Amino acid sequence: MTVKISHTESAKQFLDEASGLTNEAGNPRLKEVINAILHHTVQIIENLNISPEEFWAAVNFLNVLGARGEAGLLVAGLGLEHYLDLLLDAKDQQAGIEGGTPRTIEGPLYVAGAPMYDNEARLDDGQDPGTVLFMQGRVLDLAGQPLAGAVVDVWHANTHGSYSYFDGSQSAFNLRRRIVTDAQGHYRFRSIVPSGYGCPPDGPTQQLLTGIGRHGQRPAHIHFFLSAPGHRHLTTQINLAGDAYLHDDFAYATRDELIAEIHFNDDPKELVEKGLENRFAEINFDFVLHPSQKDDDEECRQRVRALEK
Amino acid sequence: MTVKISHTESAKQFLDEASGLTNEAGNPRLKEVINAILHHTVQIIENLNISPEEFWAAVNFLNVLGARGEAGLLVAGLGLEHYLDLLLDAKDQQAGIEGGTPRTIEGPLYVAGAPMYDNEARLDDGQDPGTVLFMQGRVLDLAGQPLAGAVVDVWHANTHGSYSYFDGSQSAFNLRRRIVTDAQGHYRFRSIVPSGYGCPPDGPTQQLLTGIGRHGQRPAHIHFFLSAPGHRHLTTQINLAGDAYLHDDFAYATRDELIAEIHFNDDPKELVEKGLENRFAEINFDFVLHPSQKDDDEECRQRVRALEK
Repeated sequence: MTVKISHTESAKQFLDEASGLTNEAGNPRLKEVINAILHHTVQIIENLNISPEEFWAAVNFLNVLGARGEAGLLVAGLGLEHYLDLLLDAKDQQAGIEGGTPRTIEGPLYVAGAPMYDNEARLDDGQDPGTVLFMQGRVLDLAGQPLAGAVVDVWHANTHGSYSYFDGSQSAFNLRRRIVTDAQGHYRFRSIVPSGYGCPPDGPTQQLLTGIGRHGQRPAHIHFFLSAPGHRHLTTQINLAGDAYLHDDFAYATRDELIAEIHFNDDPKELVEKGLENRFAEINFDFVLHPSQKDDDEECRQRVRALEK
Repeated sequence: MTVKISHTESAKQFLDEASGLTNEAGNPRLKEVINAILHHTVQIIENLNISPEEFWAAVNFLNVLGARGEAGLLVAGLGLEHYLDLLLDAKDQQAGIEGGTPRTIEGPLYVAGAPMYDNEARLDDGQDPGTVLFMQGRVLDLAGQPLAGAVVDVWHANTHGSYSYFDGSQSAFNLRRRIVTDAQGHYRFRSIVPSGYGCPPDGPTQQLLTGIGRHGQRPAHIHFFLSAPGHRHLTTQINLAGDAYLHDDFAYATRDELIAEIHFNDDPKELVEKGLENRFAEINFDFVLHPSQKDDDEECRQRVRALEK
């Protein structure tokens, strides 16, 4: 038996009161948002005939989700973080902004304040026996001119798919560095080839994904924040060609222009030059930034992040 | 600049994929619910032009909310728990079910497994110097006939508005008891007069309520689960007449039929009889239960509760 009351005047008045629209205090924008959330929530409850048991299961899920700090992971897994990118892309298109390296999701595992180096850095602390990776490239403007003094803020997982800070077994800022480009816009770093990330198997995000028949795996990837004076901040990542999940990313972050070829090199001479015993990997990738058009274009999107003030 | 993409076929396909509708595994009902949540969420984002900063503030709020275990408190404060009662009332009305003691919200602070007594019990452990309260009444059927062997599961706050278990300073099951009615349907208990509850002032629920210009206070009240063989489980509470928040309950639980008169008594003879030095309070309240019509009518609504298996 389906019963609906949300169309009644008394229900509307009740939700107005509950969302604070009938009082003079507080923040009008927050009231508007809460009122919309309440109206949409009761529509879902009525349209889908949500039982009290289903409602309380959802409430409990929110408690577990937050207790595990997985709200950021869930919105990535349900595609909402990618959807925000699609909306920003559509706004760019409407404004005639084209070209440049595409944005993609940040994910919930950035840590602010990584050590900063000029031109080059080593990202790994030497504890992970993964394949050595040399990545390099340039930061350019839309005209292809190098951007000197650009900051390449890079972070990625280890060979277990785990991130320092969130994985307490890694050293501080392992696989996290900020690198400032040289006069020719060059950056380069040594690290290890990351493995793909998987949602914590015992966590609420994976539980929900399993419930809707989905996995919680990402292809191997490397995250970047790119910033340069006079240019728009870019949140992006590269996804490594050949990964089984390259086009089956649970967080929908892969974009064609962001697939990076990875070249494995076991040339004996180069191994000697680099002081390595085993084959290593190489990636070349250039980033192209848009000029900033608004005051806050140069800034990273505000979000509560680990260690950020 | 407002941009919308949710009407596009590609956006719909994306949300179908993200909610698992395009795969064969998992739970069809959960997929339907998640799909609806995603569609309503992106409608809110687009209609209100939600900025990435606002979106991430909401995600962070969910993490804080769950970390504090306040999801159940928030849905009470935003009126959604009361809304579920309004829907159940409407379903009753549609089914011609009338009369009886009204339902009202459970709230998030029930603890399963309180000690069980025949006919009468003392609820408080004697540590709270509040006004002694004697409450009594009967559990009846719709025809006014007494229900013997009914279980009156009662819980309430202390004079600080705090509940045992959630307030670690109180003894186990303080102010929580189950009382089985006698042959005449009678129950009675001794306790202390509770104070009204207030949301944790440093918690996310109060933060949100303050943001929308609302307080987080409840009038003094006493919670009840009532159950009897052959009768429908009732979740309700009484709210004490005269409380400043009686008709300004942040959780919208007060209903006219649930307002209980409280009588303060300082008759010297009665004080001596009861062995008390100071005035005490008395409440008389009868509960009227509906006959059960469905198999699960006698059961309490399933919900994750403290100490429940």
